[in-house]
Amino acid sequence: MKIAIVGFGNVGQSFLDMLLSKKEFLEKRIGKIEISFIADSKSSVSGDFDPLEALRMKRTKGRLRDDKKAKNCLKELEFDVLVECSTTKINGGEAVEHMLIAIEKGANVVTSNKGIAFYFDELMKLAERKNVKLMYEATVGAAIPIIRVLRTYFSTFTIKKIAGILNGTCNYILSRMEEEGLSYEQVLAEAKELGIAETDPSYDVDGIDAAIKLVILANTIGIRSKFEDVKRKGISWITPEAFKIAAEKGYTIRLIAEASKELIVEPRLVKFGHPLALKGTINTILVYTEEAGTFSFAGRGAGKYETAAAMISDLVAIYDDR
Amino acid sequence: MKIAIVGFGNVGQSFLDMLLSKKEFLEKRIGKIEISFIADSKSSVSGDFDPLEALRMKRTKGRLRDDKKAKNCLKELEFDVLVECSTTKINGGEAVEHMLIAIEKGANVVTSNKGIAFYFDELMKLAERKNVKLMYEATVGAAIPIIRVLRTYFSTFTIKKIAGILNGTCNYILSRMEEEGLSYEQVLAEAKELGIAETDPSYDVDGIDAAIKLVILANTIGIRSKFEDVKRKGISWITPEAFKIAAEKGYTIRLIAEASKELIVEPRLVKFGHPLALKGTINTILVYTEEAGTFSFAGRGAGKYETAAAMISDLVAIYDDR
Repeated sequence: MKIAIVGFGNVGQSFLDMLLSKKEFLEKRIGKIEISFIADSKSSVSGDFDPLEALRMKRTKGRLRDDKKAKNCLKELEFDVLVECSTTKINGGEAVEHMLIAIEKGANVVTSNKGIAFYFDELMKLAERKNVKLMYEATVGAAIPIIRVLRTYFSTFTIKKIAGILNGTCNYILSRMEEEGLSYEQVLAEAKELGIAETDPSYDVDGIDAAIKLVILANTIGIRSKFEDVKRKGISWITPEAFKIAAEKGYTIRLIAEASKELIVEPRLVKFGHPLALKGTINTILVYTEEAGTFSFAGRGAGKYETAAAMISDLVAIYDDR
Repeated sequence: MKIAIVGFGNVGQSFLDMLLSKKEFLEKRIGKIEISFIADSKSSVSGDFDPLEALRMKRTKGRLRDDKKAKNCLKELEFDVLVECSTTKINGGEAVEHMLIAIEKGANVVTSNKGIAFYFDELMKLAERKNVKLMYEATVGAAIPIIRVLRTYFSTFTIKKIAGILNGTCNYILSRMEEEGLSYEQVLAEAKELGIAETDPSYDVDGIDAAIKLVILANTIGIRSKFEDVKRKGISWITPEAFKIAAEKGYTIRLIAEASKELIVEPRLVKFGHPLALKGTINTILVYTEEAGTFSFAGRGAGKYETAAAMISDLVAIYDDR
């Protein structure tokens, strides 16, 4: 099986690391693994190359051996699976183009790129038509197998609602505000220092990231929806006083993403002890079913190895339906 | 596809209910469904029969139309899947015999019977040799898809440990003791009245049920183990004072089942706010991985429809590897 890796930042590098370290085990499950090429938006390496050398070169020089870009590699070279690890862009960006090229050529896709939210239907329909698989576990809740269970196990259930904490940065900020009585600005500064929040935090704190993930979850359970359908409110207006008043009644405040008849991302009161009241950068997803009540799934919401681990599992699932 | 239902108590009846109500949907997924026979240890119905009439007869007369027993039906009649719903017996009992007959005949098995814990290796090896599937999601945590994710998704991960609350009755008793400051005896009496505890509660409160489920989980992740390997301590010796002292330090007490190098079921201190500190009859399973930290899976731990829903999903998974 020939793998193409596109996007070679933290996630792409961690994926390659993990693929190489598990190679023997993986080959027993899915057969011989070859890396067709590794590419990013500016450079690539293909043909005869040593993947470890590629890792070293990217880490030291910030680029790969050749000038050929990802899109050209995808068009010109042969591969069976595209592993799309590039950074998510609002509206999909180049990553979606990459996936469309791959699927059109009859290759499977494993992706961590949340850009699929903006072309979900198109991508899925093309994948079905071309009889290939598009796997995207890593896009929501890192390695929490929520996409897997929704697509397989829960496909025989009637799902009434999905609600969850889909953004670890917001959950970190809110739980620190809860614990320390600090202001939003103080905790945001702390989160930036710790690398939990970006320099421009709006993607997280305005609920954009949570909304994109919610759209992916909703479409996974058959709620056709787009980013614009999400009613969205961020967390930057929450005050320490709000936490105080909530706590007196036994509640905390969390940024909740919910999909049922409507798609909503907004800060909500959550009872202490409730599965959604968890602290830190954790992600939690609740699945409300007609047949068997509510299920909760939780785990780390981000991290390069967490993301890579989900992609390795997706890769194996394409070829090994155990 | 011809289905044989063996065991026609709460779970078997709920399975049939759900199968009939979802029939149209299920047949789109896995093709025409036929019920070959329904049987319990004393009676059965096969050949030309109306499943709804069988349900009615069992509910009113406590038995099915014919005198032929389950074992004879399994030997004499044709079927593609055995749905084994009979009550779990320590050491496996007749249910294991039923499954062995079915697998030997080349039929798949879907079961809610925890008796598989006592013959796990034998059953799995036979199923592999006969190239059939043995599905047992319903044996642990009712409809929580823990077996599914361990067998599929997490099969590419290194699992360091599994720990969980696997018995809803014990969790109910302990969380009521925590909340109300009542004695074990008082809460047990309450639980019996509510139908949460059996007249002879030892199967639950001595940790036997949790130990059996732990053996199933452990074997699922490749820890070859038997019921006798579990170090087991029940909850009947826990006092209200123990909860008081624990609470002062920020802890509660829960019956924890853990599989790593050793298999242990015992009451343990659990920090308030920890995923294992949940209250009520809920089950929670934590999966500790090398690659991506700890995952938590929670949901209702019992219930006839919950169990049936897991079995329906297992049934579909045999034929539809989506």
